[in-house]
Amino acid sequence: MAVYTQVDDYALNDFLAGYDVGEAISFKGIAEGVENSNYLLETTKGRYILTLYEKRANPADLPYFLNLMEHLAAGGLSSPLPVRDKEGQALQELAGRPACLITFLSGVSLNHIAPDHCAALGTTLAQMHAIGESFSENRPNELSVQGWEGLARATKDEADKVYQGLADMISEEITFLKANWPQNLPTGTIHADLFPDNALFTGTSITGVIDFYFACTDLFAYDLAICINAWCFDEQHSFLPENAAKMVAAYQAAKGLTQEETDALPILCRGAAVRFLLTRLYDWLNPVKGAVVRAKDPLDYLKRLQFHQSAKAETYMAGAK
Amino acid sequence: MAVYTQVDDYALNDFLAGYDVGEAISFKGIAEGVENSNYLLETTKGRYILTLYEKRANPADLPYFLNLMEHLAAGGLSSPLPVRDKEGQALQELAGRPACLITFLSGVSLNHIAPDHCAALGTTLAQMHAIGESFSENRPNELSVQGWEGLARATKDEADKVYQGLADMISEEITFLKANWPQNLPTGTIHADLFPDNALFTGTSITGVIDFYFACTDLFAYDLAICINAWCFDEQHSFLPENAAKMVAAYQAAKGLTQEETDALPILCRGAAVRFLLTRLYDWLNPVKGAVVRAKDPLDYLKRLQFHQSAKAETYMAGAK
Repeated sequence: MAVYTQVDDYALNDFLAGYDVGEAISFKGIAEGVENSNYLLETTKGRYILTLYEKRANPADLPYFLNLMEHLAAGGLSSPLPVRDKEGQALQELAGRPACLITFLSGVSLNHIAPDHCAALGTTLAQMHAIGESFSENRPNELSVQGWEGLARATKDEADKVYQGLADMISEEITFLKANWPQNLPTGTIHADLFPDNALFTGTSITGVIDFYFACTDLFAYDLAICINAWCFDEQHSFLPENAAKMVAAYQAAKGLTQEETDALPILCRGAAVRFLLTRLYDWLNPVKGAVVRAKDPLDYLKRLQFHQSAKAETYMAGAK
Repeated sequence: MAVYTQVDDYALNDFLAGYDVGEAISFKGIAEGVENSNYLLETTKGRYILTLYEKRANPADLPYFLNLMEHLAAGGLSSPLPVRDKEGQALQELAGRPACLITFLSGVSLNHIAPDHCAALGTTLAQMHAIGESFSENRPNELSVQGWEGLARATKDEADKVYQGLADMISEEITFLKANWPQNLPTGTIHADLFPDNALFTGTSITGVIDFYFACTDLFAYDLAICINAWCFDEQHSFLPENAAKMVAAYQAAKGLTQEETDALPILCRGAAVRFLLTRLYDWLNPVKGAVVRAKDPLDYLKRLQFHQSAKAETYMAGAK
């Protein structure tokens, strides 16, 4: 939520001279994204987001993310298009950081989610998965089962300071998930972080899906499970059955779900809850020096995990009684 | 350089319903201004900056600042216009903070200043002073001679940790400035903080003067002295005579300077250097907890002060040899 790297006027002008995007009319650092520095740039030819990738981004992954964004935008998803310079390159260096210019998308991200927003999200998620099927690159999900074990080890000594018994709960849950994680579900390119702050809306229409920097190759239905966790609980972390039912139904109508996928929803939702519980727990125990934003409470996802542990497939599909 | 107060979608929609500005199309927190939270808002009718005033802003001063901005914009200055709601009110409350919607201005602030930029600044400063002469409200300058004494007291025990002998240098300088500060120069509404980050340019034209939250009633020529300090030194803090000569000449051509004003430039520049030396020193010694941005080096202004101590009026007017 900050601009970590400053771009001065000379550096910006030199950078823009490599593109066919006109000259800068306005240039403002925006408080968007926790990981990178982002600027909103208006030129004589259009509006763009300039992203500078900071330390946590692995430069080796950037071509995958940018190629995926190009593939999805070209396929018709409302998602940002990386702009290529006059030499045809999208990935650049600016102010000592990897950098990329992408198209600006209008829309507002939501804090209050209604069932209709979840229906739109389900449709868009299905559309993204379908367009991604023709994307030829692969990237393993570092935050799937194996990654959880590493985070569990890194947090186990201090986890009980956050919540008594938490280390054991996590350990037992991962043992269960490893033994029962579905192996043969349809797989492809997933967003893996499609939270409400990564979707832009105008009314109930999605005008943008952004922030593809966790995208990877994994189970399609796991992406849906991440969205159920992110969009279908209220501020007190109570499940919102109508949100989930509308999201799953919209996804199913647009792309279809196999019986195996719907049967796996409870365990996939448990896995998604563990993934965010663990990364939040790690960030909570290892606060970034000088950060303005307080780390998010990991226990929000313990509550979700406990809900999913007693859920059935119908829980996510039946809607409000 | 951050967004301190979050505005959620419901609060934003309720807020906008009070105005005749249409509906939100885009809403992004921007890393602008050290003191307040700022959002760039695009609606179906236009673009705006939404400012939420944080703790350091004195709510009692806000009507003065907003009335001044309205007066200056109405008078033809390229400056933001506070937008009034349907009831005619500009000052609002949002998310528990005083808040105001102002018009968006295009342009880019500069890091590299050329003499032509200084000429434009001199003309615009003169224009602002002239328009401000018909503004009827007054606000004393809290950061003039009396204010410096308070800051000197608050920093004197630790000043020598920053630079050996600094406390004594400051004390002696203030004694000199008190004894010699000009009393009868033309007075009116001044910006008092017109640094390069508070001016927006397209090419060498100024498209916006922003951030009037230090504006006050004081000597016009003191505002010019602040600009000389802010715009007429290079990154190594060496004086740029051509920058100053062009700025002063442009100001003089647009509004005129009395003989007493030009004669006073060296002491006014010393005072301006002390003012920023002291506030920077205070911020350096009292860092804000959790701040992302490191406090600016106070010694930049010690170097300027030492330059001004041996300057004459012609120093600022003669240009490059």
